[in-house]
Amino acid sequence: MPAPAAPIPIPARHGKAALVRRGQRIRVINTHGSQVVDTWALADPPPERERPELLSMAHTRSRNSKIYPGAGDVLFSDRRRPMLTWLEDTSPGRHDTLLPACSPAIYAEHGCAPGHRSCAQNLQEALAALGVARLPFTPDPLNLFMNIPIGRDGAVDRQPPLSRPGDHVLLRAEMDLVIAFSACPQDITPINGPGCTPMDAHFTIEDA
Amino acid sequence: MPAPAAPIPIPARHGKAALVRRGQRIRVINTHGSQVVDTWALADPPPERERPELLSMAHTRSRNSKIYPGAGDVLFSDRRRPMLTWLEDTSPGRHDTLLPACSPAIYAEHGCAPGHRSCAQNLQEALAALGVARLPFTPDPLNLFMNIPIGRDGAVDRQPPLSRPGDHVLLRAEMDLVIAFSACPQDITPINGPGCTPMDAHFTIEDA
Repeated sequence: MPAPAAPIPIPARHGKAALVRRGQRIRVINTHGSQVVDTWALADPPPERERPELLSMAHTRSRNSKIYPGAGDVLFSDRRRPMLTWLEDTSPGRHDTLLPACSPAIYAEHGCAPGHRSCAQNLQEALAALGVARLPFTPDPLNLFMNIPIGRDGAVDRQPPLSRPGDHVLLRAEMDLVIAFSACPQDITPINGPGCTPMDAHFTIEDA
Repeated sequence: MPAPAAPIPIPARHGKAALVRRGQRIRVINTHGSQVVDTWALADPPPERERPELLSMAHTRSRNSKIYPGAGDVLFSDRRRPMLTWLEDTSPGRHDTLLPACSPAIYAEHGCAPGHRSCAQNLQEALAALGVARLPFTPDPLNLFMNIPIGRDGAVDRQPPLSRPGDHVLLRAEMDLVIAFSACPQDITPINGPGCTPMDAHFTIEDA
């Protein structure tokens, strides 16, 4: 059995992407407990030139007939193919599929000066560092550890994460893919905990 | 006051797109009452070459802090700009933002032979008929009249529409845009009513 790989940092307010082969497992660790990790996956290579195949929150909701995926569920691409199987979740299991990645326009709404980092920027930077072509839009992410309760009338609430330091989720790749993460830079609202301080998270890629 | 324009058909199982100028109003009529109308909007022209600006269900949920938009709400683009203001809704007000457009892959899951029409195909055909470049993916639509109740645990249900023949929604364009519709071809499940028979819908573009 090979020694476990050293965890790869997702630096606070930044992104990181990696190649994952089918069958490998991706462990996403909420190192400090309260960090939201926006997560994307792209089939590698894309099945058609200039038409990426992407992890899709809408198709994942549709195939599982639920808003909140978790351990035991399969996550699907926009072509309805299994991309990731959710194997483990040591957190209280609240993750979000409803809200978009934060973006320069959202920080402008908050009154921030231009240049505030964002998950949308982090995705593109992480892909570029891996040599993956820029996407012409920001796919809706799986927001790991993000706590978005839904009221009975469909109201969307925003709460600090329920996760604890060291909590992890474990996903198995069902195809060769690029996985991309962003340690969400949101420091205006308490979505990353009441301290409003983005922190590092980590991940490992493990052979089966 | 000009005579009202004749309603434009959205033929059953097909799509239709139209140019709309800022300030114009779009009336979407559920002619037979039980037809889901998948709806998309694209800024016209796009603000950057090869980077469309699209009506975004995730940003609309985020800005309104609710899953179900309706009369009085603004619908936002993926750049967080107001695209449409929802002025009127004579239906019981259940519309969906959670599920994707139906696609060839979904009909394959249903066991249909290849070639079953889909909202994904209808979008691209409707854009092509208007001379708008093909999108490299299918944006998640606003599913007008689609009745998707959410359980307290986040379970996604699928029910026939609550709308009645002649019910309409009225939207005001907040920018110059292309609006695209699909009269959903779903005839395997009762999402278009218990008869599982897609029907025509209609729309008008009205000056303010």
